[in-house]
Amino acid sequence: MAHKRIVIIGGGFGGLTVARTLREADVTLIDRTNHHLFQPLLYQVATAALSPGDIAWPFRSLFRRQANVRVMMDEVVSIDRMARVVHLRKGMQIPFDILVVAPGSRHAYFGHEVWESWAPGLKTMTDAVQLRERMLLTFEEAEQASGNTLAQDQLTYIIVGGGPTGVELAGSLAEIGRRVLSKDFPSLPPDALSIILVEAGPRILSGFDPKLSTKATRALVRMGVTIKLSSPVSAIHDNGVMVGAEWISSNNIIWAAGNKASPLLKTLSASQDPYGRIRVRPDLTIPDDPWIFVIGDAAHCQGKDGKPLPGIAPAAIQQGRYVASLVNQGTVPERRSPFVYKDRGMLATIGRAEAVAQFGPLHASGLLAWLIWCFVHIFFLIGLRNRVRVMLEWVWYYLTFKPGAALLFPRRSASPDKPSSTDNSQT
Amino acid sequence: MAHKRIVIIGGGFGGLTVARTLREADVTLIDRTNHHLFQPLLYQVATAALSPGDIAWPFRSLFRRQANVRVMMDEVVSIDRMARVVHLRKGMQIPFDILVVAPGSRHAYFGHEVWESWAPGLKTMTDAVQLRERMLLTFEEAEQASGNTLAQDQLTYIIVGGGPTGVELAGSLAEIGRRVLSKDFPSLPPDALSIILVEAGPRILSGFDPKLSTKATRALVRMGVTIKLSSPVSAIHDNGVMVGAEWISSNNIIWAAGNKASPLLKTLSASQDPYGRIRVRPDLTIPDDPWIFVIGDAAHCQGKDGKPLPGIAPAAIQQGRYVASLVNQGTVPERRSPFVYKDRGMLATIGRAEAVAQFGPLHASGLLAWLIWCFVHIFFLIGLRNRVRVMLEWVWYYLTFKPGAALLFPRRSASPDKPSSTDNSQT
Repeated sequence: MAHKRIVIIGGGFGGLTVARTLREADVTLIDRTNHHLFQPLLYQVATAALSPGDIAWPFRSLFRRQANVRVMMDEVVSIDRMARVVHLRKGMQIPFDILVVAPGSRHAYFGHEVWESWAPGLKTMTDAVQLRERMLLTFEEAEQASGNTLAQDQLTYIIVGGGPTGVELAGSLAEIGRRVLSKDFPSLPPDALSIILVEAGPRILSGFDPKLSTKATRALVRMGVTIKLSSPVSAIHDNGVMVGAEWISSNNIIWAAGNKASPLLKTLSASQDPYGRIRVRPDLTIPDDPWIFVIGDAAHCQGKDGKPLPGIAPAAIQQGRYVASLVNQGTVPERRSPFVYKDRGMLATIGRAEAVAQFGPLHASGLLAWLIWCFVHIFFLIGLRNRVRVMLEWVWYYLTFKPGAALLFPRRSASPDKPSSTDNSQT
Repeated sequence: MAHKRIVIIGGGFGGLTVARTLREADVTLIDRTNHHLFQPLLYQVATAALSPGDIAWPFRSLFRRQANVRVMMDEVVSIDRMARVVHLRKGMQIPFDILVVAPGSRHAYFGHEVWESWAPGLKTMTDAVQLRERMLLTFEEAEQASGNTLAQDQLTYIIVGGGPTGVELAGSLAEIGRRVLSKDFPSLPPDALSIILVEAGPRILSGFDPKLSTKATRALVRMGVTIKLSSPVSAIHDNGVMVGAEWISSNNIIWAAGNKASPLLKTLSASQDPYGRIRVRPDLTIPDDPWIFVIGDAAHCQGKDGKPLPGIAPAAIQQGRYVASLVNQGTVPERRSPFVYKDRGMLATIGRAEAVAQFGPLHASGLLAWLIWCFVHIFFLIGLRNRVRVMLEWVWYYLTFKPGAALLFPRRSASPDKPSSTDNSQT
């Protein structure tokens, strides 16, 4: 495949795997940020247990030894199949012979996009750091207010969506409420933090076996989380949500429900499912174009059971490897064997020594599942430095209950001699 | 000293030392941020070698085991000596019997406060993270521009001030230019980064012995830094500085020259020196008030040689211990022995295996001084967790030349389906 120009859109699990596997081809990797983000642990940055630098890798560091990979930080706004170029937001056009589209997914608000301003999601590092900042500020303000009126709205968290992300957030916030808050903010009552997990369906973790859903539910309830099942959100405002006919007041609403694919995919003019994912062929290409691949959350890829593959890291990584081998060998369409997903099971953590794990018919919960979860996530981190850092942070937090990254520093430092409303900073 | 209420303004080296030493008294520590910042290493956050979490400690974590210390995150706007209260920006008044004023210092712009918007300093975590972000963005943009016009202004750094901070910044930027940039941004020429250190006096590191100044100068020049001596800055604009009659173009101007004391000190109505520092008595109190102490950068404290003590960490720490012991013992003014500063020497690092160290008549430079510098700074970090983290990061950077924290993530994530100028986020 000499002299073929390969362009990869997106440096998440899928795109990164392709780039790291193609060690000789002419590769251009385009991402909106300058780093690869280990999304499964993003909720830990949001709850101050980890620092951004623990779960992110600058692309340029990762590809230092791969002179064949060029990294560009920009956003792809459209793909021109006919002209074989992608258009970047800053204006450049990048030509390609082979294209790998791996832009990931966004949060879907079921038609109510305005909800996003009141109920942010957790997809990027910026999301996580902003959530952390709001959480820490909220605690500080609540403590100062506690002498007068306890600001219950400040200390109520509503998490919308009972999938793994919602469960993980609920569990780690519950841990903070019970273990960290009372030690760090002693004038707040021990049960000050109120956490409500709202799920539209009949059970949380609907992708797991029902018995594991039940175990997870019990664990969360033991940790003090209120779970509302069969409770679709009908309205969101800046100070609460409407769940059916019930209004729940809160200043802290986090969206963890529903994904939809990147709007970029429309420009491919290929068939999309209701979530916007591209319906790919068995070799992960779009119809009528054997050298444009779509992988990861952006792809609707049929699994063995006829259902689309879940939007999880192992799926994106396996697809990435598959595409990279096709590219490396230059296999023509007629000779390609279809992509086959090997189900490595599913994991979701709930809290300290509490998790659920499912691998085919094998289930695990509690401490065993939690240890598996820890080891798997450490294993999939990139490189020794980050593995060591995360392990140290986890051991630290486990032993001391002190979140390692509970830092507040505002984005702008106001001029010291003027009121903070006057912003003299340059950027 | 039972039942005396002690209020400490500022959680830097001075204020923190007092609070950590008073294990039984009723202490309230007030700081504008929620964390103690290890300022000597702040320039490493600015140059992406360390993460914020490596050099900052949430006060609440530090004081978990000291139930006698109450932490408040707020800004003190004035001190009322007569009424024995401090006024906070958010409105509260905190009464005190004993007051320790340790607010640190700000940057002085020699009357030209408007320069601050074009030439930010490096005092807070926000400063450091903003500098890092601008640096990384600058490199990304310069690489994309390099096909057309090389944006030399983008890649020129002017550092104003040849003291330790300026020298450390210049050295670490030079290191990035020579070692990191060429590996991570291969389309930029190897000497793309141009670093100019501007000093108004006849030599850099004027607080050190002249021979060490000369060694430091030579080391910087070997690293590719341009040093301009006897060159006071006469004007600063957003695109460059005027040094005497010479104009130097640059989009990156960093201020590391000149300190002045916090404006809060005016409200003490006590004698101040030209930098705004309070002229304290031998027992570090203000005249006419034996239970109001001023320590650290905010204090003009006479040393043995008749000159004021330098604004460095060891001075603040020793003053903190002295004040804490007076408070613990309740020593009346007539019985207090004066504060005596033990000069522990001075250190400044320049770059990899390059530093200068001075301890009385003993001097060291090069690798030896650098090792001393590393060990001293590790030693003064608080706690095993941070010592291990910083050591690991330094070893990593030393071996790989990959800065551990070179992450870009914008403060706000724009709504994905709208142009980024529309900001729907809540905060």
